[in-house]
Amino acid sequence: MKFTTTLFILLFSYSLGFAQEYIGPKAEIDQILENAKNFSHYIVDADYGMILNAYTADAKIFPDNTEILTGEEAILKYWTLPEGVSTSYHKLMPEEIKIMGDEAYDYGYYEGTTQRSDGSESSWKGKYVVVWRKEKGEWKMYLDIWNGVK
Amino acid sequence: MKFTTTLFILLFSYSLGFAQEYIGPKAEIDQILENAKNFSHYIVDADYGMILNAYTADAKIFPDNTEILTGEEAILKYWTLPEGVSTSYHKLMPEEIKIMGDEAYDYGYYEGTTQRSDGSESSWKGKYVVVWRKEKGEWKMYLDIWNGVK
Repeated sequence: MKFTTTLFILLFSYSLGFAQEYIGPKAEIDQILENAKNFSHYIVDADYGMILNAYTADAKIFPDNTEILTGEEAILKYWTLPEGVSTSYHKLMPEEIKIMGDEAYDYGYYEGTTQRSDGSESSWKGKYVVVWRKEKGEWKMYLDIWNGVK
Repeated sequence: MKFTTTLFILLFSYSLGFAQEYIGPKAEIDQILENAKNFSHYIVDADYGMILNAYTADAKIFPDNTEILTGEEAILKYWTLPEGVSTSYHKLMPEEIKIMGDEAYDYGYYEGTTQRSDGSESSWKGKYVVVWRKEKGEWKMYLDIWNGVK
């Protein structure tokens, strides 16, 4: 009976996409989850200083249709929104995080909404892989790659 | 004089995109480089058994515009080419590989050419991040995500 209930909850969780797996010390996992949540806040607030600060100084980002971007200037330029455009909603949904010493991988889905000053909105969803690195006690993103989900 | 020459070669290499950095035991790096090279051969040969074998049993692949795909069936389906289509050229160009125990991250560029039975060809280029995992002494891909370069 207990097994059946557990199995049911497990399958139910899977079907809802809740199947998170976090491998490693809880304190490290918690800091990465916290940083991921804060990153979404920085995106919505267009807080470019904090967005940059979420990455290591030598971070590489992999937006669609660009070369690999590295360096503060290139990363800042990528994230800077044009006049009249804002991100009203942003969420990261990690599926799995694994701590490997001072590095960690993390993959999952993201979603968000872009708002324009003419009142139009568009929502988008995608998936990502991030390699985090712990620098001076802080988990920061070193590799950040993503692409869309239809 | 020697410093100037070294600096010149270094800058020249960077400008050509040759700036590879491999961090970890040489034997492990070499096996990953070998596996990456073989993966391109399997793609060109449409050797689906060996393509599948390049991934861990629980691997996740992240093609553009799909959900995260996992499981032999989904991965096989993704890589299987339609009738009359072949990949005549495929190359992975790792920029950096770092071994972290039994896991490694690897990122870089890839390029390839698709050939159709009507004689038409298209070439493409992209960038990728792979998380490798060593299983029973063999490095296999656990996470494989990529997107295009314009």
